[in-house]
Amino acid sequence: MAKLNENFFNLKKNYLFIDIAKRIKAYTAEHPDAKLIRMGIGDVTQPLAPVVVEAMEKACREMGVKETFRGYEDSGAGYDFLRDAVSDYYKSFGADVPAGEIHISDGAKSDCGNIIDIFGEGNVVLVTDPAYPVYVDSNVMSGNSVLYADSNEENGFAAMPPKDIKADLIYLCSPNNPTGSVYTKAQLKEWVDYALSNDAIIIFDAAYEAFITDAELPRSIYQIEGARKCAIEICSLSKTAGFTGTRCGYTVVPEDIIQKNSKGEDVKIADLWNRRQGSKFNGVSYPVQRGAEAVFTPEGQKQTKATIAYYQENARMIAATCDELGISYTGGINSPYIWLKCPDGMGSWDFFDYLLNEIQVVGTPGAGFGKNGDGWFRLTAFGTHEATAEAMERLKGLLKK
Amino acid sequence: MAKLNENFFNLKKNYLFIDIAKRIKAYTAEHPDAKLIRMGIGDVTQPLAPVVVEAMEKACREMGVKETFRGYEDSGAGYDFLRDAVSDYYKSFGADVPAGEIHISDGAKSDCGNIIDIFGEGNVVLVTDPAYPVYVDSNVMSGNSVLYADSNEENGFAAMPPKDIKADLIYLCSPNNPTGSVYTKAQLKEWVDYALSNDAIIIFDAAYEAFITDAELPRSIYQIEGARKCAIEICSLSKTAGFTGTRCGYTVVPEDIIQKNSKGEDVKIADLWNRRQGSKFNGVSYPVQRGAEAVFTPEGQKQTKATIAYYQENARMIAATCDELGISYTGGINSPYIWLKCPDGMGSWDFFDYLLNEIQVVGTPGAGFGKNGDGWFRLTAFGTHEATAEAMERLKGLLKK
Repeated sequence: MAKLNENFFNLKKNYLFIDIAKRIKAYTAEHPDAKLIRMGIGDVTQPLAPVVVEAMEKACREMGVKETFRGYEDSGAGYDFLRDAVSDYYKSFGADVPAGEIHISDGAKSDCGNIIDIFGEGNVVLVTDPAYPVYVDSNVMSGNSVLYADSNEENGFAAMPPKDIKADLIYLCSPNNPTGSVYTKAQLKEWVDYALSNDAIIIFDAAYEAFITDAELPRSIYQIEGARKCAIEICSLSKTAGFTGTRCGYTVVPEDIIQKNSKGEDVKIADLWNRRQGSKFNGVSYPVQRGAEAVFTPEGQKQTKATIAYYQENARMIAATCDELGISYTGGINSPYIWLKCPDGMGSWDFFDYLLNEIQVVGTPGAGFGKNGDGWFRLTAFGTHEATAEAMERLKGLLKK
Repeated sequence: MAKLNENFFNLKKNYLFIDIAKRIKAYTAEHPDAKLIRMGIGDVTQPLAPVVVEAMEKACREMGVKETFRGYEDSGAGYDFLRDAVSDYYKSFGADVPAGEIHISDGAKSDCGNIIDIFGEGNVVLVTDPAYPVYVDSNVMSGNSVLYADSNEENGFAAMPPKDIKADLIYLCSPNNPTGSVYTKAQLKEWVDYALSNDAIIIFDAAYEAFITDAELPRSIYQIEGARKCAIEICSLSKTAGFTGTRCGYTVVPEDIIQKNSKGEDVKIADLWNRRQGSKFNGVSYPVQRGAEAVFTPEGQKQTKATIAYYQENARMIAATCDELGISYTGGINSPYIWLKCPDGMGSWDFFDYLLNEIQVVGTPGAGFGKNGDGWFRLTAFGTHEATAEAMERLKGLLKK
């Protein structure tokens, strides 16, 4: 009789998107002609940049010719051409990340889930609340208990290190999903110092870094002194370049993160990750890596930044509408998410129903991301200008008094 | 202080390919003009089929157009077009596998490593020896101890269920890597019956199924009665269609595998895998899935089978040479591997050095795959006709007395 991983039974069923789908289905069944505007899901809508498509097509053709065909990658951590390109990208905004520390992956979600493999039992895991559910779920699956640092209106939804918790593993996400808040360098420095003083490791999710326009805000934790000794950074091209369906990301594991094992010996965390990936991963599709490389060329940066600017204009529209309506929010600038306070003290789900029923706009109830999300609501800037503008007109019509 | 997964320190350092590389380097340093023929690594050399390249190129172009762009996949388990195609492929050789039970992945290695996530501690894990190292390593990483079923000359390198072990998890690979042996239906039925009688789960690695030409031999464990209640099958397009660098595989988790949890409640194994993947995986690149779909079209089958036939001709050449030289071997038919007995009682590494020094042919010492591999040697059929023929001429020149 195979013993099962019974930690799975401790996972909370994530009803969030199931519930949303159910309510939408019920509504559209009764109102088949309703023109819903979906601003709930964090998926992109704009196509891949032309240079990316060209590079991928070319790589596909190479795979069809004996002389240029590629089989297994040597390391499985990515081709040098892409690791070098990512390293140069980091340099462009002031972070020094050697190519050899960059591990190319099929996306941030995989690495975010798999990184747990290298850690043992009994770690105190600290997650900000609200948060992306994968941080908690991947830890629960491994039998780790999770403590929370509150992100709330008082701290601008930017949780800071709790004085009373000695964490071993810390999850941070900036720009934050779902709240859109962005840590300043000073704030991140506090987290790095906290991690160093506890010999803790930060898992830094930088998936939305490309939305940062304010040059004073850090796009990578490696812009912070000391981070190379304590932080793993996970990033992705999903939001940077619309790779949600193309699948490519990267994880940085600095050689300088050294921890003690139970015998008191030094262990390089990068060695554990290399060993994990060496046994359980075989690299990313070659054409996809060529597409990713193209993102980091000058032309690729120009084209992908134009798409980011398109989404940023949507975010600006949503934020301006909130301003006009006197609604509190975080995000909207330096982030594709607008995290807004439900008006009149409404709960997240009440507001969801209200928008669905009255103006056929679908967002995401903040309560789905953690207890501090209750009474808050997430709108995303990933739609079209037309749909976003129309949704904001409807919202003004509904809430303007 | 983060606690580490100290099971990693119990992993044997796999010196096999490092040692091989070292010896080759030393040899070529002394003999810079030597013409090495590499028959050691299990990577393919022939390009992707034209229909696959075309399908991938088309999909890349779709990703560049707003109307046909694809973002996140709904389930992450693969697009219906591909799951349906794989299901039909199974039907073509007599296995009934519903599309909904097929999970598309980035390759067999990932799933083979990640499947351990759903199992708990204390399982008796049974692996045939010799074996693909990932089976053992992924279990050691999770703290599971591994027992072995011997594959040896006496049983034709086809280990059968040991009477004295009550296994909970069983790894089987047929056609086998490294030995090239293929289980008959009767043999697989014994394994299925053994698993059912122990309420055990078989993890069946079918990566080389496309090399089976004998219609009497099973290409899938689901051709065996009862397998739907106890077997997970992992397969890949790496060897079927040259996808080692393109990355696409599939794992079948039948809805009929039910196990008890510690409370005695029924648990569907498929639910655990769905939950694991839902939290830690986000699907395979859309263009890659379109390429995989093309493999299963009539034209795709014609083209990929021509490449398989090319490798099979190499395997035939190697086997014929062994016959001529009176060398015992398994594989060669229904398999891209030839597993041969080192002549004159030589050890695996002695024979490796002998071939390298005398005829500049590189193979893989069987000892690297487990204790039963000592005195045996693996040659692969994935080279070119020219190189394979040349290597066989050299081998005959060396060993013919």
